[in-house]
Amino acid sequence: MPRIIEDRNIPGKLGEAIGYALAGNGKRLRPFLFLQAFKMYSPEEEKVLPFACGIEAIHTYSLVHDDLPLMDNDDFRRGRLTTHRVYGEANALLVGDALLTLAFELMNSVGENFPPEKVQRAIKEVVKASGPEGMVGGQYLDLKGEGRKINLCELEKIHRKKTGALITASILSGGILGNAPEEDLEALEIYGQDLGLLFQITDDLLDVVGDPEKTGKEGQKDASLGKATYPGLLGLDGAKEKAEEKRQAANISAAKLGDKGKIFIELSDFVFSRDR
Amino acid sequence: MPRIIEDRNIPGKLGEAIGYALAGNGKRLRPFLFLQAFKMYSPEEEKVLPFACGIEAIHTYSLVHDDLPLMDNDDFRRGRLTTHRVYGEANALLVGDALLTLAFELMNSVGENFPPEKVQRAIKEVVKASGPEGMVGGQYLDLKGEGRKINLCELEKIHRKKTGALITASILSGGILGNAPEEDLEALEIYGQDLGLLFQITDDLLDVVGDPEKTGKEGQKDASLGKATYPGLLGLDGAKEKAEEKRQAANISAAKLGDKGKIFIELSDFVFSRDR
Repeated sequence: MPRIIEDRNIPGKLGEAIGYALAGNGKRLRPFLFLQAFKMYSPEEEKVLPFACGIEAIHTYSLVHDDLPLMDNDDFRRGRLTTHRVYGEANALLVGDALLTLAFELMNSVGENFPPEKVQRAIKEVVKASGPEGMVGGQYLDLKGEGRKINLCELEKIHRKKTGALITASILSGGILGNAPEEDLEALEIYGQDLGLLFQITDDLLDVVGDPEKTGKEGQKDASLGKATYPGLLGLDGAKEKAEEKRQAANISAAKLGDKGKIFIELSDFVFSRDR
Repeated sequence: MPRIIEDRNIPGKLGEAIGYALAGNGKRLRPFLFLQAFKMYSPEEEKVLPFACGIEAIHTYSLVHDDLPLMDNDDFRRGRLTTHRVYGEANALLVGDALLTLAFELMNSVGENFPPEKVQRAIKEVVKASGPEGMVGGQYLDLKGEGRKINLCELEKIHRKKTGALITASILSGGILGNAPEEDLEALEIYGQDLGLLFQITDDLLDVVGDPEKTGKEGQKDASLGKATYPGLLGLDGAKEKAEEKRQAANISAAKLGDKGKIFIELSDFVFSRDR
């Protein structure tokens, strides 16, 4: 049982279902990015762990809701059955709602350890990136685009919102809580936007050429849903070139952070070559 | 278009769908309670309006999700078609997710106007009441109880969480932001718990004897879902007696607040006699 739901008065199997959704072999990319950005400026990592967990809870809620039959109808995620396949659709809906609410509670709880204006700003970035102007808006556009011909510009808009916004906000909020100077925050934000697109392009590529044993997802899912993808629009080689372009762009921003930004260069290189 | 989504970069019809869910002939009970509690201690009402809107957004998200076919499958709400009946199920799911996220943004936004520890505490109360230990947990128990025989104690537990927790937190957070003394906060909290149950008992009664023209809902819905209700367990007269008991209990707490608490006595009297 993950610690964030331990010692809570959660009825029946709802706590177990929340734990199921949170567990599994996730990459934990967003809290990792948040913590890396924070640690560049502050050693007090343990004080922001609840915030990092809140970010992962937001990401996880979005997966649970997106996997529902009324949305993407996915049976597998992170190498296991999706939450609704184990606990039923109604409970999976509630698991997502619970995770999003817990996320707010977790982010709000770091308040006493940092200047209030920093906490408020960090929360604002994550929340805005998660809502209808960010992730939820991206999922809306993604659904709307299914089975319809969309161009590269529209595809990038979808992914900036659906995946990029929360990835960017994870990095940015880490910098904000760490009290990074404004020029570093700007570099972190632009880095995050390029990394987010790089992540999505490699995600699309893995859907086509990835090994389901490693990705933990069903392969060729995008094509079966009639979704536009980078390989679909640009071909495999074109998508790989696009990924390389984003990797380079991300690394230019990371380089602006000096020596302490090296971890972000390693990270975009890693995302570029990932196989899961 | 409600002001809380104006001037936002929300794609396509998603903003319209969020506006549809928020509009309609709702009672706005929770923000009203919040504002009444706040105004007992502070005249600066306009500074907390975003918080009040956040509370209503949480309530509205819960209705949109609960109405989905995979949950309670309701076609009418507030005298109009439910959100998924107009915009489709996937969009309704996203509308709920968007509203919950916007709620947190709105509550977080009052930060600059109040002492940070008060804002943090007020948010904590509302968020805890909305999540798996509160409203989401209550909806889980409610679903689990459908078609099963449950006793009065279990029914009260469901409603304390499902309806009572957010009603209580609305009042309590208003007092907290208004800087009410601790003994008043205690009275407000107990008042809220009794009012919440009173509200639910009258809701159950209206489902049986109410006029769908006034309630805006389909009548006899609880019975058709096999849900336990107060009239079902206690009979109509027994449920009315129970409501009277809760009204009196609520008014004892309200009386502890002195003259400034009179509005809460009027309010429980109003909820007791409501026809919608």
